[in-house]
Amino acid sequence: MDILKGINSPKDLKKLNIKEKEILAKEIRELILNIVSKNGGHLASNLGVVELTIAIHSVFNAPEDKIIWDVGHQTYVHKILTGRKNEMFTLRKINGISGFPKAEESEYDVFNTGHSSTSISAAIGMARARDIKKENNQVIAVIGDGALTGGMALEALNDGGSAKTDFIIILNDNEMSISKNVGGISNFLTKIRSKKFYKKSNNLVKNIVFKIPLVGKKIIKIVEDIKYSIKKFFIPNMLFEDMGYTYLGPVDGHNIEKLEKILNIAKRIDGPKLIHIITKKGKGYDIAEKEPSKYHSTGPFNLKTGESTIKKDKDYSKVFGDKLINIARKNKKVVAITAAMKDGTGLKEFASEYKDRFFDVGIAEQHAIGVAAGMARNGLIPFVPIYSSFFQRGYDQVIHDICMQNLHVVLCADRAGIVGQDGETHQGIFDLSFFNIVPNLVIMAPKNFRELEDMMDFAINYNGPVYIRYPKGGEGNTRINKEDEIVLGKAEKLLDGNKYTIIAIGKMVERAYSIAIMLKKENINVQVINARFLKPIDEENIIKWIGNTKIITIEDNIVRGGLGSTILEILHKYNKKNEIKILGYPEKFIKQGTVNEIEKKYNLDTESIIKIIKRWSNYE
Amino acid sequence: MDILKGINSPKDLKKLNIKEKEILAKEIRELILNIVSKNGGHLASNLGVVELTIAIHSVFNAPEDKIIWDVGHQTYVHKILTGRKNEMFTLRKINGISGFPKAEESEYDVFNTGHSSTSISAAIGMARARDIKKENNQVIAVIGDGALTGGMALEALNDGGSAKTDFIIILNDNEMSISKNVGGISNFLTKIRSKKFYKKSNNLVKNIVFKIPLVGKKIIKIVEDIKYSIKKFFIPNMLFEDMGYTYLGPVDGHNIEKLEKILNIAKRIDGPKLIHIITKKGKGYDIAEKEPSKYHSTGPFNLKTGESTIKKDKDYSKVFGDKLINIARKNKKVVAITAAMKDGTGLKEFASEYKDRFFDVGIAEQHAIGVAAGMARNGLIPFVPIYSSFFQRGYDQVIHDICMQNLHVVLCADRAGIVGQDGETHQGIFDLSFFNIVPNLVIMAPKNFRELEDMMDFAINYNGPVYIRYPKGGEGNTRINKEDEIVLGKAEKLLDGNKYTIIAIGKMVERAYSIAIMLKKENINVQVINARFLKPIDEENIIKWIGNTKIITIEDNIVRGGLGSTILEILHKYNKKNEIKILGYPEKFIKQGTVNEIEKKYNLDTESIIKIIKRWSNYE
Repeated sequence: MDILKGINSPKDLKKLNIKEKEILAKEIRELILNIVSKNGGHLASNLGVVELTIAIHSVFNAPEDKIIWDVGHQTYVHKILTGRKNEMFTLRKINGISGFPKAEESEYDVFNTGHSSTSISAAIGMARARDIKKENNQVIAVIGDGALTGGMALEALNDGGSAKTDFIIILNDNEMSISKNVGGISNFLTKIRSKKFYKKSNNLVKNIVFKIPLVGKKIIKIVEDIKYSIKKFFIPNMLFEDMGYTYLGPVDGHNIEKLEKILNIAKRIDGPKLIHIITKKGKGYDIAEKEPSKYHSTGPFNLKTGESTIKKDKDYSKVFGDKLINIARKNKKVVAITAAMKDGTGLKEFASEYKDRFFDVGIAEQHAIGVAAGMARNGLIPFVPIYSSFFQRGYDQVIHDICMQNLHVVLCADRAGIVGQDGETHQGIFDLSFFNIVPNLVIMAPKNFRELEDMMDFAINYNGPVYIRYPKGGEGNTRINKEDEIVLGKAEKLLDGNKYTIIAIGKMVERAYSIAIMLKKENINVQVINARFLKPIDEENIIKWIGNTKIITIEDNIVRGGLGSTILEILHKYNKKNEIKILGYPEKFIKQGTVNEIEKKYNLDTESIIKIIKRWSNYE
Repeated sequence: MDILKGINSPKDLKKLNIKEKEILAKEIRELILNIVSKNGGHLASNLGVVELTIAIHSVFNAPEDKIIWDVGHQTYVHKILTGRKNEMFTLRKINGISGFPKAEESEYDVFNTGHSSTSISAAIGMARARDIKKENNQVIAVIGDGALTGGMALEALNDGGSAKTDFIIILNDNEMSISKNVGGISNFLTKIRSKKFYKKSNNLVKNIVFKIPLVGKKIIKIVEDIKYSIKKFFIPNMLFEDMGYTYLGPVDGHNIEKLEKILNIAKRIDGPKLIHIITKKGKGYDIAEKEPSKYHSTGPFNLKTGESTIKKDKDYSKVFGDKLINIARKNKKVVAITAAMKDGTGLKEFASEYKDRFFDVGIAEQHAIGVAAGMARNGLIPFVPIYSSFFQRGYDQVIHDICMQNLHVVLCADRAGIVGQDGETHQGIFDLSFFNIVPNLVIMAPKNFRELEDMMDFAINYNGPVYIRYPKGGEGNTRINKEDEIVLGKAEKLLDGNKYTIIAIGKMVERAYSIAIMLKKENINVQVINARFLKPIDEENIIKWIGNTKIITIEDNIVRGGLGSTILEILHKYNKKNEIKILGYPEKFIKQGTVNEIEKKYNLDTESIIKIIKRWSNYE
């Protein structure tokens, strides 16, 4: 780490020559591998942008020049180069360095990202603000070819193409989003990479020249003119040029010298520019180069073997995927749609077993839900698993396309509740609330794997829109054997009791059950209700069961608008005066930490809840 | 109407020759002008697609072939041709024919639309479903060049380009969304239309040919080859071809014969096709041709003069626009962003007065909000007026880009609450609920014009994200003189009273005030609170003011998750046992009708509310 030692800000980088920068790249790769193999994190994407980040910080002057990193999980190199190298061992830990850019953390992080496809909009906004303020800095958006397929990025690409303002888009083309990329733009980029077009055009020109019988000087000039014209139009930068961008590239994204050269050219050209950089995800770490999807986001692993150092339990995504295969076998109408999250949502096996009934539409949640609507209208039953926090991207489509038409689509929210170390952009703690108000939508959350399967079976037979949400990870130690049949809008009573009632939903049900059993031993008599459905909620049974008990609701969602709020509304409706405590997350953006740490912090772990009930009990 | 008389379904259309169809087009234009000048509605877009719709229904066999109309407000011709011509006089009226496609209304309306940019997703979904079911029909999406700039459409365009399935996109290019179109794609389409590229290529070829000294037969053949090659690559269909579409066109969209020809060609080509049709908004009605924006959506008007037959009062959009000019004069940081709604949101004057501080980003709500985030990060204060129901499209951006970074952006929801005749896709009755749960966001709604201005002044000085929502139309007869200063999170008490408390927000405040005054005459003592802020809500004062009164909350939003729910939560928090009635819309999609009709239907008009309170009062 001889060279890295001397790098405390991008200024230090500018003193190095290319050779030294190449050594620095190696040192940075080593550091990243070291950290990520211990802390977990986004590996492949960071290894892919080492040279690019070095070149960017060599050519531009951050923080005056604004560098916006799309998605932002590829900013480890950027963080190392901008004064945070010594804190990187706290990466993704509670109160530590974030895995994403955070303005709160450094002046070099000029725009917070996390969700995909936002960087071009932000860059255009910053460039226009600069113009209005008559300032003079550069604005650069760094975006992957995967993120480019997101609607927001495409909207921005369109607007930016006609914007009379200077900004640079660096298209980091690695043929991957999280999984392999799809779509027309991706195919187009592949063509550029392979230069088929270019070769084709050259052959055409050669043939033409060859066929011309008389070759005088004048003819040669003319032929050269033709060649230039044809070449210009065969080189397939058209898509971007058509939209108004000066296209530069493609350039090898692991060659620092070439990168600096093209960045310097881009600096001198006016208007919107797009630089096409080719990189390799996982570059420099063989194991990740071979399986970039696997090492996109990883837990701690053994550097030599690449094997996970943490035993991975079966998780909800896997249960979902396996069950869907099972359902698809019996029902030919069932299809699966993903927005570039095949592996993450457990669809890997489904995709290979039912190739013709599996659709990866790219990073494009809006379209994923729109396609599902079209399919449902034409007689299929689409299952659409999307991460909870990404459902925000398809909110209008769920309302306007699915629920307003009351279509039979099964929306599945993976990573619901607290996800942990990815932090505030990825926590799935709002979905129960924002979907709770959508007419026609049925909302469920299973208490364990078995109930997820049952809910999926239910969803197949329910002729309307269904939303099932489940957490990241496994079910933990289940102790509940009871498994009533799933009936629309019916809750399930798990334990009797006459003093307190805990009403819980999803992963919090198991916790409620354990708590009740523990409290019974101390003669605090608690009954437990598994709500199962948030919508329609089982008001009739809940009112009947609660009697005059004191009520505690528990959910892994914010307090406002979710289960607790709904129970409050029911009490009001039935004019019941039961006391009630609503437990859930506060209306805040919740930062990184392990799930356990966060639950403890917000008094949602078993011990805290027991304390709350005991205190209530003692108080009387 | 001689020919139209005989058209009861598309089958009848197929018997006509081109001449007869041209006469039919005239008759249909007459009928549409007749209806829209009486009922109001979308005029210019429907006049623009008369020939196109006739050609589509001549060539394809609906409803087996699926025709999906993007946005859907241009379906009057389609409705006339598919058996609904005699009911068209009920257009947009309560229980009448909808201004948008509705599967509930006709089997020819295969996919409900309303919001923009959904049709390509739906078409791809339907095409894939057809393939899986091994059926054989055609699927056609008809989309305007304006709607094509929406992120959802672009996501779909990308996915569709690599989809190995047959479907047709008809790009209805009229250079307009609601206002004049913007962006790179639009510029690109303009190039095609003007055929500059094509001419340029032709000239190039001519020059080359001219310069070649010896012209033998072989040379001519070669030159022809070159000409073809160059022409193919100069004709700028590249953007779509690059993405994987077979591009056909451009074709005159008012020439039925040419239209039918190209539609028939498209039918025979495999894979994804894009047909580029050039139409004129308002075609055939001079007044609308000249000002298509004005006649995009119109109230009743005089056919001869084009003048509105209803006196248009000053409305909230106008107040917003005027005030923003006023603010911008004093504060150089203030800019305005619109997503293709310049006129509708009252920004017309602002746009001409502050050309450099006005940005129309096209139909692109996500990007509009993203650009605002970038601008705010770089020191500007952007105002972003968007229709309430379209904010659903930017939900993630409001959460993830604006509020998570706590940026100083002023989001303004025009057309909040019931909008009336556009029906369920356009009612703005969910926004209070879905934004109520977003951390950091300040939510306000003004009781009248003056208060909107005050809230905008407040927003300028509040250094964080603000959401101000106001209804379609005017303020009505205001009787309230009281106008306390706007203070963050503070409500305003308008009338004292000790028996009942009405807490209202936005346009419902004036109503509450009138009701209280009327009831006082009958010795029913009602105090009135103007909530002003939904978030943060003034819990302290509200708790103090309500004492032991009975509470009625009124809002033009659904009941769940809005003002009433929040008051319920406060009562719970402060352990208050006041009785409370929550008035608002049920959790339903609310169909078309006048605002008055709808309010009456859901007991939110003055009389109904008085009845509710009186009944409550008598009951005791």
